[in-house]
Amino acid sequence: MPIKIIAFDADDTLWHNESIYVSAQTQFKQLLAHYHSPEWIEQHLYQTEMRNLAHFGYGIKSFALSMIETAVELTEGQITGVDIQKIIDITKAMLAADVELLDHVAETLASLRDAYTLMVITKGDLRDQEIKIARSGLAPHFRYVEIVSEKSPDSYNAILQRYDIEPTQFLMVGNSLRSDILPVLELGASAVYVPHHLTWVHETGDASTIEQPGYYEIEHLGLLPELLTRLGR
Amino acid sequence: MPIKIIAFDADDTLWHNESIYVSAQTQFKQLLAHYHSPEWIEQHLYQTEMRNLAHFGYGIKSFALSMIETAVELTEGQITGVDIQKIIDITKAMLAADVELLDHVAETLASLRDAYTLMVITKGDLRDQEIKIARSGLAPHFRYVEIVSEKSPDSYNAILQRYDIEPTQFLMVGNSLRSDILPVLELGASAVYVPHHLTWVHETGDASTIEQPGYYEIEHLGLLPELLTRLGR
Repeated sequence: MPIKIIAFDADDTLWHNESIYVSAQTQFKQLLAHYHSPEWIEQHLYQTEMRNLAHFGYGIKSFALSMIETAVELTEGQITGVDIQKIIDITKAMLAADVELLDHVAETLASLRDAYTLMVITKGDLRDQEIKIARSGLAPHFRYVEIVSEKSPDSYNAILQRYDIEPTQFLMVGNSLRSDILPVLELGASAVYVPHHLTWVHETGDASTIEQPGYYEIEHLGLLPELLTRLGR
Repeated sequence: MPIKIIAFDADDTLWHNESIYVSAQTQFKQLLAHYHSPEWIEQHLYQTEMRNLAHFGYGIKSFALSMIETAVELTEGQITGVDIQKIIDITKAMLAADVELLDHVAETLASLRDAYTLMVITKGDLRDQEIKIARSGLAPHFRYVEIVSEKSPDSYNAILQRYDIEPTQFLMVGNSLRSDILPVLELGASAVYVPHHLTWVHETGDASTIEQPGYYEIEHLGLLPELLTRLGR
């Protein structure tokens, strides 16, 4: 059956996101620079984030709490209230950051919206993601927006059921092998991997091991219409 | 048209929630007891929460960040890292808290689920709410679960449209006049106010001023079936 519905991941597929985290981490490392090396801080922060994922889930507020916890631990409680407030201010700036679209996104969505039903499937904090979709200016292109707490075969399947979509008609586009590609292929749907030069290590994987049918990789979103034409033949 | 769809708010309508916040606040006030009076801390925390609502939205992680910010401010930066970690631990315990159903909830839902389409409409953190619904054991009663970032006439309207529901067939049940009752009445649907003895001051209002048709008030959820029988006549 030909592809009818195209779903896009949002962060680092439609707009820059990881760069905001990287820049916040840089500020965080500067804040703790007289205690530890940047490498040690980064490693410890990642461990704290992984440990806290089960408590806090994804998103900027979770990241904020993990930064604060890391700061307390790495300074053995010596971190000052003023520096804690600086961490909170870093995260407020993250939440207020402009949404910067990736190259080719606006024109690609505009060119596809008439021939396909377009949707967003993104994970993370409900409110953060809603605000970004609104700020992006892309909302009119999307028929549906689904914000989920975790991207698993089950959560994709629930969405397909909700909108009565056959897996063979469904194509997911994203930059995370773990979240956007593998669970979708598992359902028998198609998935297009668009690597992003900054991808959180938690979301990466080895594309060369993927052997399921329905898997495609393109260098940037501007190449999606051409791929779709090829698939439609 | 008779009521066909009944939507329930979750926190303090189906299960205890505000009590978890009240208990966390008590611990927070004890933590800062050698700096300020409980009243002053409580007042300042509420102000911080209101100021941060636009940044952080609702939920436990937002509350955590507001407690930390309040602690820094009220101690003029003197708060120790150890106490900051205690605040984070308080919020982890909140997230892990058991879901305790309110009286009459389980049997009322069981008695209504065959005659009506039941759904949950709750606001707050996506992940927190999903976890609570799963832990509550009530999930099988609900056909749909909608977690929104804000309860406004627009957000209710989007839900009615999504499921093709006429306002006259729709009844919302909840403990917040601001979030569960007023926006629903504004759409011409019905709303049942079930006051809870602990309701966050941000969510309260004056029920005696409500004059729209379709407004009802009951003392507890066990009285809902009787009310519905009365309305159906």
